[in-house]
Amino acid sequence: MTRTIIFMSDLGLRDELVGVCHLVMNRIAPEARIVDLSHGLPPQNIQAGAMVISHALPYMDATAIVLAVVDPGTGARRALAVETRAGRRLVGPDNGLLSLAWQADGGVARAVEIDPRAVGTTTVSPVFHARDLFAPAAARLAAGMPLEDIGPVAEGSRLVVLSVEAAEAEPGRVHGQVLDVDRFGNIRLNVRPPDLERAGFRVGTTVEIATTGISIRARRITAYGDVPPGEYGLLVDAWEWAAIIRFEASAAAAMGVTRGDPVWIAAAN
Amino acid sequence: MTRTIIFMSDLGLRDELVGVCHLVMNRIAPEARIVDLSHGLPPQNIQAGAMVISHALPYMDATAIVLAVVDPGTGARRALAVETRAGRRLVGPDNGLLSLAWQADGGVARAVEIDPRAVGTTTVSPVFHARDLFAPAAARLAAGMPLEDIGPVAEGSRLVVLSVEAAEAEPGRVHGQVLDVDRFGNIRLNVRPPDLERAGFRVGTTVEIATTGISIRARRITAYGDVPPGEYGLLVDAWEWAAIIRFEASAAAAMGVTRGDPVWIAAAN
Amino acid sequence: MTRTIIFMSDLGLRDELVGVCHLVMNRIAPEARIVDLSHGLPPQNIQAGAMVISHALPYMDATAIVLAVVDPGTGARRALAVETRAGRRLVGPDNGLLSLAWQADGGVARAVEIDPRAVGTTTVSPVFHARDLFAPAAARLAAGMPLEDIGPVAEGSRLVVLSVEAAEAEPGRVHGQVLDVDRFGNIRLNVRPPDLERAGFRVGTTVEIATTGISIRARRITAYGDVPPGEYGLLVDAWEWAAIIRFEASAAAAMGVTRGDPVWIAAAN
Repeated sequence: MTRTIIFMSDLGLRDELVGVCHLVMNRIAPEARIVDLSHGLPPQNIQAGAMVISHALPYMDATAIVLAVVDPGTGARRALAVETRAGRRLVGPDNGLLSLAWQADGGVARAVEIDPRAVGTTTVSPVFHARDLFAPAAARLAAGMPLEDIGPVAEGSRLVVLSVEAAEAEPGRVHGQVLDVDRFGNIRLNVRPPDLERAGFRVGTTVEIATTGISIRARRITAYGDVPPGEYGLLVDAWEWAAIIRFEASAAAAMGVTRGDPVWIAAAN
Repeated sequence: MTRTIIFMSDLGLRDELVGVCHLVMNRIAPEARIVDLSHGLPPQNIQAGAMVISHALPYMDATAIVLAVVDPGTGARRALAVETRAGRRLVGPDNGLLSLAWQADGGVARAVEIDPRAVGTTTVSPVFHARDLFAPAAARLAAGMPLEDIGPVAEGSRLVVLSVEAAEAEPGRVHGQVLDVDRFGNIRLNVRPPDLERAGFRVGTTVEIATTGISIRARRITAYGDVPPGEYGLLVDAWEWAAIIRFEASAAAAMGVTRGDPVWIAAAN
Repeated sequence: MTRTIIFMSDLGLRDELVGVCHLVMNRIAPEARIVDLSHGLPPQNIQAGAMVISHALPYMDATAIVLAVVDPGTGARRALAVETRAGRRLVGPDNGLLSLAWQADGGVARAVEIDPRAVGTTTVSPVFHARDLFAPAAARLAAGMPLEDIGPVAEGSRLVVLSVEAAEAEPGRVHGQVLDVDRFGNIRLNVRPPDLERAGFRVGTTVEIATTGISIRARRITAYGDVPPGEYGLLVDAWEWAAIIRFEASAAAAMGVTRGDPVWIAAAN
């Protein structure tokens, strides 16, 4: 039975880090298919990594194994293999990276701490657990090793959980923050469709969006193509987050915002 | 029978967009092989995308399916699946992106507009047709669904066609423009070998190349290694475009040119 | 018998170069698995390419075929297929790129110069040997063609060999240079664990690290997570090179160093 390993990291594609992890997995589980979900995330941004995994979750089948590595504290946290209540297996550091995924899957069913010998590693570099612990563990699971053979049980209730700050919404206003800026310069906010609804910002409504440095007007639209030349738009993106966009240009560059910046949205007069 | 899906987009490898499209296709057509042609093109540059596809066309077999997404007008144009006269299937937006490929293949044999239900999508995000329309359509074709089952017929004669401006050549001079600047800083021009021949710029000839801001001398050479230290060269690149290069340096940075800039080439005195 | 082709280049993922090489190989050797080791190396940096291959070597099985393209002198050097004494096959330009790998494998057993007709190429672009010579040769080998059928014998003793400058170490001081700066801004030095040992820089020791422009203090640590906020650390990286790192920041940006810069490390008072 062929398993798919879905590999996500902040290791980048500049050098051999990701490729060597592929070689390690191919050796242990030659039949497994490896899908590279992304390796280009902002380095060491655990929240961005956790969101990427949870966005992809609905498109993974139940036998998929997630290998996730965003690991600023390599060597100072536990190395985990987790089975969710939905039966998916997640492999990665115990720093919250996997937590949005297991929450979306109804929680942790079982968790173990990866034992190097169990996954066939004799020497573990203290600076490259992706190669020496996480990739081998994911490949062993893909090759059929049961979770409990990967290492000793890790107490599920003590695993690190990430919290994503929610926006505050009331009629006529939403206060949120910048979650991410994508390749096109679109600004993703921690604002969800129910927040927009609560504030009364329907499609066609014009709002005023303020940061600490600038204030612009935007119309709530549906698709990227709906924004007129030179103008801003506010839409719900493909993962159900509100995003500020600009006509064939970078909204983030024009507004001068970056991850974490506060944003106030109010009904325009 | 295993089909190959050749996937090209401007979605970038920074986040999960490309990876999620892979997951969607793996589910529908687990046997298909997906080759990533490129996802790093300048965002929203339809012409660059169309050229990449046509460059790769001679290396694709006749059963290959092209999935192409450069889609600034998502939501405001039709979503197509096209069969060329050479029998290849192309999936992408109706914005000209596919047109250089079908022209190289002798034209469009049949075209349909993708019906979400036909490809198994229940909800279409207005901002991510790659995931919800194009990837599913390409995967359905790879899994054996006939083109006519993908959606209603789209009138072939009304499909958007891209036109690439040709250079002007006469004995002793060529007037063209910058098509692209590659990773090495080499400057690709819309100038073809027959233009160089018409102007009399043979290998060994020295020419003067002028932009609006600078004028340099270059010798017509054959290979990158033929250009002496500190100098410029003019050569025919691997896709039969004329290109300006510089010895182990970026010609584009040195000349200060960018896509679309006019270039005049004249015989040097 | 399915072979793996391990593909490394400086071609980048911006455009179609790498993808077209995949298409070329899929046609010749449809059963081969292609692993992309890296395509994002600094353009034309042969030493960086050679090191990437040698880092990955221990993770490749003996039947693997390495396809390596960092080729500033395309057209002015020989195109090689080499079999190492360990039985691995390496394909690439004769510019030193492959030499660290065959040295690690005990030397060259046999080498041939790629004959275009032997690998099925009718026209060779003088500017894209990756597509027209190297990828076809690697794929022919993967499909079972014997090395001697790829082209005429190349005299092994006359192949270009790369030399990586060694650091100088004595008790209390090491003089080395910057080999590379990675995605995280970590600075890799040409300093090996025995150099650190010779100098007496054990884990826990504080050293002074000077460049021509700046001098900083760093503690020898074991893992990235061991460096305190705002401070520098000196550690042994996953490939057994000494590296200067900074707490969740770019050491290279803070120190203003770049590849090739000299570095002096001395015991701190």
